[in-house]
Amino acid sequence: MQDVSSLVAQAREGRPRAVARLISLVEGASPQLREVMAALAPLTGNAYVVGLTGSPGVGKSTSTSALVTAYRKQGRRVGVLAVDPSSPFSGGALLGDRVRMSDHSSDPGVYIRSMATRGHLGGLAWAAPQAIRVLDAAGCDVILVETVGVGQSEVEIASQADTSVVLLAPGMGDGIQAAKAGILEIGDVYVVNKADRDGADATARELNHMLSLGPSRGPGDWRPPIVKTVAARAEGIDEVVEALEKHRAWMEERGVLADRRRSRASREVETIAVTALRERIGDLHGDRRLSTLADRIVAGELDPYRAADELVTGLTQG
Amino acid sequence: MQDVSSLVAQAREGRPRAVARLISLVEGASPQLREVMAALAPLTGNAYVVGLTGSPGVGKSTSTSALVTAYRKQGRRVGVLAVDPSSPFSGGALLGDRVRMSDHSSDPGVYIRSMATRGHLGGLAWAAPQAIRVLDAAGCDVILVETVGVGQSEVEIASQADTSVVLLAPGMGDGIQAAKAGILEIGDVYVVNKADRDGADATARELNHMLSLGPSRGPGDWRPPIVKTVAARAEGIDEVVEALEKHRAWMEERGVLADRRRSRASREVETIAVTALRERIGDLHGDRRLSTLADRIVAGELDPYRAADELVTGLTQG
Repeated sequence: MQDVSSLVAQAREGRPRAVARLISLVEGASPQLREVMAALAPLTGNAYVVGLTGSPGVGKSTSTSALVTAYRKQGRRVGVLAVDPSSPFSGGALLGDRVRMSDHSSDPGVYIRSMATRGHLGGLAWAAPQAIRVLDAAGCDVILVETVGVGQSEVEIASQADTSVVLLAPGMGDGIQAAKAGILEIGDVYVVNKADRDGADATARELNHMLSLGPSRGPGDWRPPIVKTVAARAEGIDEVVEALEKHRAWMEERGVLADRRRSRASREVETIAVTALRERIGDLHGDRRLSTLADRIVAGELDPYRAADELVTGLTQG
Repeated sequence: MQDVSSLVAQAREGRPRAVARLISLVEGASPQLREVMAALAPLTGNAYVVGLTGSPGVGKSTSTSALVTAYRKQGRRVGVLAVDPSSPFSGGALLGDRVRMSDHSSDPGVYIRSMATRGHLGGLAWAAPQAIRVLDAAGCDVILVETVGVGQSEVEIASQADTSVVLLAPGMGDGIQAAKAGILEIGDVYVVNKADRDGADATARELNHMLSLGPSRGPGDWRPPIVKTVAARAEGIDEVVEALEKHRAWMEERGVLADRRRSRASREVETIAVTALRERIGDLHGDRRLSTLADRIVAGELDPYRAADELVTGLTQG
């Protein structure tokens, strides 16, 4: 077992095995978890985190891969976190069509990690931010968080990102329908991929119309742009990067970036605290303190509320 | 607003309005909740709590009513708590066919309360034990807790009782099938009601067979008896009371009654503690402490785990 500080130093140098080992330590709730997180803290806060969501089939992996290529051309170090909330598999292996990512597998400036969260303690909300911290501390300038699946998990991923990209494709039938499920509220940038197909303009128009029905925006507010791409041929990808940079600049100018990161940190602390308290309460069965309190309740010496107070106080004193 | 100690004194004298008021205070999580619970604590522990569960249509209300009559003949004070986990209605009103209970509505030795738990903080596990404490402190010798509905709620009610009665009826088709869902593990006494109908003997035989397939019992262990009744004509009800008294005597002899009450008190404390911690964590949004911690995380001065530790410690110091 390597010590944590040397692992962190190696990750800073961009050694992929050290990064992989650190992510495994944080996502598996290892005994070193706290040591790793403490060592990473002063090294974080530099990466720009972009979330990519969208229904299966819209071309998320292809788009992610094209974005990696674009950012690499700018000389940025890129981390990719592919999160699959429905899969029990995790680790360094690439899942499904994310094999396209292998274009970048020999590039030392790119770090790619698949992460499955099913069955994990606290799920996505718990595991993803920790992996993002590792990639951030490892010196990634941009972290692309791609999520497979729909619904709540997309919203969760969006809440982890500085900027959220929502992808759609024409002819998906339920594309915009699915979009009703909260997607119209989370997108900072919308991408209509597969724009060489019939119906791309109609999809963009419909999306534009639906966005215009949303909350009215003032002159300084962010208006989510809609970018048309053919990710498989890298068409429109530079425009996506440009839209991302504009959004980032707008957020920095307005203090929105700092606000988002603060509320992300709040949620992260909250999730960890709730998980810790639940575990402690779960550990109480067979605990002498709880059974002593129960004895006193049965004897009529104590009521359950006073007992709960004593228990809660005891919990935080280890 | 009457003060709590005078309400408790009046409830001890058997005044139904005082009992009703106290139950409303505890089930509604009123500001006086803690004061009420503290006042009740030294007065509790005398009542024998019997849970009655079974599928809809087996005759739970009729059986409960017949048991009330039998216990009243013995001069015992009886409380009835009719819990409906699926209903949003609560209060003094009697629900549905529980109108049969009106036979006892003019008897000052009987206190009847309907309780709905849907939407309640912590649900059944939270509300029922508190109402049981009020009835216990009010001087009920026996408290019959009848639950409407099936599945998890039945198991929860059983966990609140000293003795659990599971009711079945012949010709229900799915009677025994439903019984597979945990009911065979929770019954201390089984009642085959509507025993004048065809198939009653077959139901009792089948039940007996299924019980024999359960964990093997030693010579001193409790063997759940099967009693046949026609509750509508009060047939077999004395035998049920007898079976209950035997079970109670067996539990007292073996220390099982004290064990059950201790573990019930443990669960009660745990539920209150978890609810309190969840509320405190829910209150954190917009709390200055959490936002200060988030600022320090964003600045890289603190990692989320250390922050969660500080938060948890802070939670118990108000």
